[in-house]
Amino acid sequence: MSDGFLPTEKFSTDLDRLFVWRRDVRHFRKDPLEKGLLETLIERACLAPSVGNAQPWRFLNIETPSIREKVASNFERENGLAAATYKGTKANLYASLKLAGLREAPIHLAVFADTETDAGSGLGRRTMPETLAYSTVCAIYTLWLAARARGVGVGWVSILDPQVLSEDLNAGENWQFIAYLCIGYPVENHDEPELVRQGWQDRIDASKVLFSR
Amino acid sequence: MSDGFLPTEKFSTDLDRLFVWRRDVRHFRKDPLEKGLLETLIERACLAPSVGNAQPWRFLNIETPSIREKVASNFERENGLAAATYKGTKANLYASLKLAGLREAPIHLAVFADTETDAGSGLGRRTMPETLAYSTVCAIYTLWLAARARGVGVGWVSILDPQVLSEDLNAGENWQFIAYLCIGYPVENHDEPELVRQGWQDRIDASKVLFSR
Repeated sequence: MSDGFLPTEKFSTDLDRLFVWRRDVRHFRKDPLEKGLLETLIERACLAPSVGNAQPWRFLNIETPSIREKVASNFERENGLAAATYKGTKANLYASLKLAGLREAPIHLAVFADTETDAGSGLGRRTMPETLAYSTVCAIYTLWLAARARGVGVGWVSILDPQVLSEDLNAGENWQFIAYLCIGYPVENHDEPELVRQGWQDRIDASKVLFSR
Repeated sequence: MSDGFLPTEKFSTDLDRLFVWRRDVRHFRKDPLEKGLLETLIERACLAPSVGNAQPWRFLNIETPSIREKVASNFERENGLAAATYKGTKANLYASLKLAGLREAPIHLAVFADTETDAGSGLGRRTMPETLAYSTVCAIYTLWLAARARGVGVGWVSILDPQVLSEDLNAGENWQFIAYLCIGYPVENHDEPELVRQGWQDRIDASKVLFSR
């Protein structure tokens, strides 16, 4: 039992500001992360909640230029196909959006869930095996917040063919692709989502998503 | 552009301690949350990242005792079926675990992802529609951290039949069930996962889940 950490009101206010300020980053400076910082962020990510304490997250640090090139091509191909699904002003707006920072970000991190892990002995996932993916998302978001608290930005790239990506990255056999993260120091800091600023999608008020039963 | 919030080293240390201290809670006091606090937590949850800014999270505050009773029965049925899959000492250990706080927690919150939302106009989810569920998980984890920073505990219940639950809760037609949360003041605070303390599953070292390519 531990009462060693009782957060203060000041901390809770600062945490709220981090939630507001966090944001997806697509504009990175090219300078590398401080040495050891990636490992520190992975350690924090491993503190995330996981179903049955299965800790199914697996991280691939993509350093090889030719593999990064394949990922960038995957994104460009899928982004082109996605662009073609829009018409009129929405198509023009889509074309103007910068949706990834793959060419600039110093760190590329691919994140997977091991769907066949023995850890946790299956506890809590019999009816909902997708909770392994959800646990991995919690790890990603933990890394994201820990990064931003250190001035480091994260961008989540999902405009990818997951099958092709897993092959190009030679991922583990039962690893489910969850996210491709670009990590680095941001060019600018914003407290409004980029898609709000660009007029793509406004915020939805919290009162609109809470219902009673 | 905003440089209004540059987190300090003290904040980043406190955030790390929150990650350690957060923990799944299954032992709740019965006293209600402070008035308005649930709404505050939902507002924080809505600051989570989401694919294409789709904000697909939908929250059902379950207040009706007969509906809560159906959820508790759902859990007990599925927990019994799960228990039957273990043998020997693992079976005994499983039987001894308290895996939900449904009978005590003052707040029950069911969380869904609206898989047909127009918001975001499909951006970022063409090849990975599951990112709507992942965005909802980010909202849940935001709520969890915001709650813990205020001394409030959260337990994530996944030992449920999602189909039966969605019917019992009269959920929206295209709502995918993600999590059932028990929320309230914890009886005790721990900085070790309950499943570690009970000998079910140890922590895995961060160095074991990071690989290079």
